[in-house]
Amino acid sequence: MEPKKLYNTTVINEDGVNGHVYVADPNGLDVEISDPRNDLPGANPEQFVGLALSTCLNATVEAIEKKNHVPHTSQVRVHVTMVKGSQGLEFLVHAKVLIPGVDFATAQAFTALAEKRCPVSKLLSGSPNVKIETVEQF
Amino acid sequence: MEPKKLYNTTVINEDGVNGHVYVADPNGLDVEISDPRNDLPGANPEQFVGLALSTCLNATVEAIEKKNHVPHTSQVRVHVTMVKGSQGLEFLVHAKVLIPGVDFATAQAFTALAEKRCPVSKLLSGSPNVKIETVEQF
Repeated sequence: MEPKKLYNTTVINEDGVNGHVYVADPNGLDVEISDPRNDLPGANPEQFVGLALSTCLNATVEAIEKKNHVPHTSQVRVHVTMVKGSQGLEFLVHAKVLIPGVDFATAQAFTALAEKRCPVSKLLSGSPNVKIETVEQF
Repeated sequence: MEPKKLYNTTVINEDGVNGHVYVADPNGLDVEISDPRNDLPGANPEQFVGLALSTCLNATVEAIEKKNHVPHTSQVRVHVTMVKGSQGLEFLVHAKVLIPGVDFATAQAFTALAEKRCPVSKLLSGSPNVKIETVEQF
């Protein structure tokens, strides 16, 4: 069975990391960007990765909360670190999931399920640089 | 040798996919978000993935252009499609790289090198859903 297409978007970058990047839609985002290694204002790929994973993962946890008839209390914080090692530049991605409305074992089960279901964590699941963790406090 | 940390950022999502998501920095992005399957205004994880990959990949191509003493002419367009198949929701990511300032074989070589070096494409490299392609026109 062919997968069913539900949504499509296009993002255009002409400037590299200094300038702007935009969604190809009249109402889409147009974001100022800059190299994070300088002090200029602007977003960067590290932040975009954090926005993608935190939103996807928390939306998935929220759906699981709803399915289990518990109030939505989850929060996701994603830390992205740029490092330079023997393989050149790399990003380390560390997502922390806090679900204060349920006990910790349940929070861990919800997180594990969300990690399996969230399309962004699926895209990242082959990378040893990505860690998704349930926490009791931030 | 421990990799050297060059930059760190934190992104916070409390709302799931309907509300907002923000970078934990006084001057950081604060973005309105909404489920792409409805008509409400707002960005979404698909767009954030496209912003991350297009910016990282094009910045890397730009560095390669510079190293090779050719003018910066590259552009990257990233198409992200949400599909629902037997494995639930997934994102298909298709990046197109256009470098009109060099011949096509050189453009392909620059793209291949950028794909290996760009931290975001490294994060995504384990996924069968990600395709990075050199194009002669968009």
